[in-house]
This record gives sequence, C-alpha cells and structure tokens, in this order.
Amino acid sequence: MDVIVGIDIGGTSTKFGLVDLNGKVHYQSKIPTASHEKFEGFISELSKAIKKSANELSDKVEIRGIGIGAPNANYYRGTIEEAPNLRWKGILPIVEIIKGNFNVPVVITNDANAAAMGEMIYGGAKEMKDFIVITLGTGLGAGIVCNGKLVLGHDGFAAELGHVIINPRGRQCGCGRKGCLETYVSATGIKRTVYKMLADHLEESELRGISFHDLSTKMIAEYALRGDVVAKDAFEYTGQVLGAKLADTVAHTNPEAIFLFGGLSLSGDLIFEPTRKYLEQTLMPIYKGKVKLLPSGLQNQSAPILGASSLVVSQLNA
Amino acid sequence: MDVIVGIDIGGTSTKFGLVDLNGKVHYQSKIPTASHEKFEGFISELSKAIKKSANELSDKVEIRGIGIGAPNANYYRGTIEEAPNLRWKGILPIVEIIKGNFNVPVVITNDANAAAMGEMIYGGAKEMKDFIVITLGTGLGAGIVCNGKLVLGHDGFAAELGHVIINPRGRQCGCGRKGCLETYVSATGIKRTVYKMLADHLEESELRGISFHDLSTKMIAEYALRGDVVAKDAFEYTGQVLGAKLADTVAHTNPEAIFLFGGLSLSGDLIFEPTRKYLEQTLMPIYKGKVKLLPSGLQNQSAPILGASSLVVSQLNA
Repeated sequence: MDVIVGIDIGGTSTKFGLVDLNGKVHYQSKIPTASHEKFEGFISELSKAIKKSANELSDKVEIRGIGIGAPNANYYRGTIEEAPNLRWKGILPIVEIIKGNFNVPVVITNDANAAAMGEMIYGGAKEMKDFIVITLGTGLGAGIVCNGKLVLGHDGFAAELGHVIINPRGRQCGCGRKGCLETYVSATGIKRTVYKMLADHLEESELRGISFHDLSTKMIAEYALRGDVVAKDAFEYTGQVLGAKLADTVAHTNPEAIFLFGGLSLSGDLIFEPTRKYLEQTLMPIYKGKVKLLPSGLQNQSAPILGASSLVVSQLNA
Repeated sequence: MDVIVGIDIGGTSTKFGLVDLNGKVHYQSKIPTASHEKFEGFISELSKAIKKSANELSDKVEIRGIGIGAPNANYYRGTIEEAPNLRWKGILPIVEIIKGNFNVPVVITNDANAAAMGEMIYGGAKEMKDFIVITLGTGLGAGIVCNGKLVLGHDGFAAELGHVIINPRGRQCGCGRKGCLETYVSATGIKRTVYKMLADHLEESELRGISFHDLSTKMIAEYALRGDVVAKDAFEYTGQVLGAKLADTVAHTNPEAIFLFGGLSLSGDLIFEPTRKYLEQTLMPIYKGKVKLLPSGLQNQSAPILGASSLVVSQLNA
C-alpha cells in the first residue's frame, strides 16, 4: 500500500499519520516536540517513529512522500525560520534532513496553508478553485487558494490574515504592532473581548468569577448558550470584527467560499451567525449573496495530518 | 504581420490600436463611445474602424486576436454589466458580438486587470510571478497576479481594492457604502482631502481661491511643489492612507512589488515618498524591506491598449 506521511509540528507535541492516496488515515501517533535540546535529535526520533509505524502497519507499506505543517515554515527554502513557539532558534533545514532519511519528496508549509490544501483535496472545497480557509486557534491563520493553486507569495509568507490591522490604536499584538485581527478574533482575542466588556459594562455575568488564565473559548460558548449577556455579546462582537474584515478580503480575491476551521469555529452558530451577518452587511454590492461562509469539512482530529499529507498529493499530481 | 487589437473602452472615448507580438503599437486611433444610442451601433462602428485601420496599415496585416479593457467587465461571461459610466444599461454581450465580426479569440476584463497583464508582458513585471498593479484615476482599481496568473476570483470580480474600507464612518462612496479606499486615494479622493483640510485648518493656501470643480490633481501637485502647505499635506495624507492599507494587502498575497499606474502616480515623489514611508512603517516585521513600490513601466498613452492586447497574448501563449 502506498502512503503519504502527514506531520503536524506544534509547540508541545508533533503528530504524524500514514495516509493512503484516498485520504484515509491508517495510523496516527505523536511524539513530544520539546524534549530534545538539539533539532537533529528531534528529527531522528521522529524519523524512527515513522519507520516503526510503517512496519507495524504492514510490511507492504511504501512511503511515497512526506508533508509537513509547521509554524513559520518557508515553503521555498524547506525551512522553519525563527518560530517563536519552538525551542530551536534560527533557520532549521528540516526538509533537507528528512529527505536524507527517507529519500522521497518532502514538502513543508505553515499550518493554515496545509489546512487549505487539505480542504481542497479531502474537505469541503473539492470542487472549488477560489476559496479561503481561516484557522482559529490561539492565533488566526489563513490559507488562500486562487485559480486552484495555493497563494504562497513571493517570499512564501502570503495569507497572514491574522495580522491585517483592524485599528492602528487597538490591542497590542505579539508581532509588535497594534490592532491586528488576531488580537480580536482567536481564542485569545475573544478572552480579551470578554475582559474588555467586563470592564466597560455593569451587567452581572458568571464570567466575573473567572480569572483570565482559567477562561477558555469553550467556557465562553457554554455561558453564551445559557444566556449570559457578556458571553453572548463577546461572540457577537467577535463575529462583527471578523465579518467586516472578511469583506475586505473578499475585495482582494473574490472567493467562492470562506471556511472557518478549529477552535472558535467549533462554537457553531454563536460565531457563524454574527460573522455571516456582518460580512453580508459590509460586502460591496457586487459580492452580496455570493460568498459562502462554511465550517471546514475537516473538523476532526486527523485534519492537520490530512492537511499536511495533501501537500504532497497535490505535488505528485502536478 | 500578425497583430492583436487592443481596445480600451472609456466613458467618453474608445481607443484601439494594432499591436504586434513584441508589444509594438503600429496604429492607434479612437472613436467616441457615447454617440450611439444602441450598443450594436457602437460595436458596428468600432469594428469597421478596426478593419479600416488594418487595411491602411498594410494588406499583409492579420488580426490574431482582440483584447478589451472595459469598466464592469466580466471575464467569464464576456460581458459588460451595469457599467455606471456607459450609456447602455444591462448586460452587454460584447465578446460574442465582436467574435461574430472577426472570428478570432476575444478576451475582456476590467481596465485594472488589463493594466496588470500589460505590466507582466510588456512592463516592469516581466520577471515577476507575484505582484499588484494599482491604477489611480477618477477611482482606484487594481489587478493582482499570484503564481504568474491574474487573480479573477470566482465571479470574475477580484481585486476591487478601491472598495476596501478605511473607516466605516468615513466618506460616502459611489458604491453606496462609506469610507472606501478610493474616496481617499484617487483623483477625486485627494480633492476631497484638500477641501477637508481647508475646512479643518487655518493655514493660508492658494487652494482657497479655487472651486472644487476647477481643482485637478495636477494643480494640487503644482501647488505642493511650490511649497503650499495644504497641497503638501494633502499628498502626505493620501500616501499615509494608501501605504497603511497596502500593508494589509501585502498580508494577503505577499507580492514582490506594487506598481502605481496613471493619474496620481504621475505626481512622482509627492505620492511615492509618503506611500513608501507609511507602507514600510505599517508592514508586519516579516515583510519589512521586501516589497518594492514602483511606478508602472507602462506610463504612456498606449498603456491601456497594450494592456488590453496583452490579455490575448497570454491566452495565445497558454
């Protein structure tokens, strides 16, 4: 059986899976990302774990390629560069090292681009040539597809939609600037909004009893469903900021659909309804009623691995 | 000699030219756009003028294709749709009619997309795969190229960057919304800025003696070069709005360069310096120092015709 290895490198753990050419995940496992002082040690452990898993699955498994989703990945250079949430600094030539261990095509890109490729090959965008995936996690990532191809940009850093500016005098962002979209729309963003609302308003709310560190998106969603005014308003406000900003994004690439993936997007109508409302309200007339706002078709545990593996599928088919 | 016809349809006049496959314009003429009550009458006159010009040039001229740049053009349907500055309303099947008259490939797209194709084939973007052209005229248009291909979008209406929103409570726009980029950055936009400044400030300025209708971009540039404070501030402010907004656009498609074409861009340093300064200042760190802001390589009379003809060149080469 021919398989592609999908690898999803996160700050804490690195997941990998063996995916057949139809997108079925046959084996899935993970190793800790942070336990090796040297990057080479980490890659060595990861390579061994992959080879072992292939042998365990069947002695007829043949690895055809490896796709990697990682933070601060440079597609063109095959590197991870100055990733703030990894312990290894500098420029890591990951593609070269893994190619050396397996001698198959190896492709790397950032997590959100991997999600967009996954959506196109296995998810809700199978028939689409122009769409956008927004990944909502601790931050906000995006993958843009135009003319059936991922937009990587001249330096490989396209689609940093988490860092378009909502308000130049707004919230401090980790990138060093102020008012970036992800300071409002992300797991951290909606928490900041809850605390802003608790500061601005007088309404009683169960959220007044919870510390910033203890609060999660899931809790805000639970309170909102129970009718908590602050929690409901926080979702409304988050959808307003996202919807209005996506109207500008539509004026760039005129996508058929925008998919929301992960984290906040799992709150369903709480986030989709206001986002859709404010998107529609803000869109330029020629776009009104034409852009679908959809949940990702890959909302499950294997999505990052599928996304990463799909990078290679698209290259093998090219 | 093989030629491609480039047609540039404007509200007042329609220019056309015969362009050889190296981008040399051999013949150029125009007819009035608005003198025919019926669209069919206009196309008939245009077709005759083109055939006559080909015969005049040489009896060995062979027309290989026709490219059209027009307002509200739909590339996919080959139509002009509800163009506010043309006298014919509804949906005009221009490609079908012209194909009937010439029996060669005919392509249409909006003026700014034509400018971007022209830039790629004949202008400053010959070696580029990822760039953006901003056309500054009465309004602001744009053409986006990613992976070496024009981004048309799902409905053929991509790159309406004149209508990304700067300030939701800002200036009234012709599109029915408020605060669109082109209400600040365009020939009309900078005039509005001059009048806002004359209202807000007390500085003496020669501009206080000129009516809104009499004022032109060229005059504002002349006053600015002579040291008029209001005129200089108006350029500074226009560059600030454009530069800051282009930083968001870079976060979408990570272009190698952004070209400014026509109108305001002919004011040179007056517009390029502040735009470059605020773009650089606003860019996310990973993009800083990487995006070129350049004048179009097609800043001459034949540019719209070259742009329109290049649409067909790219299709013949595909």
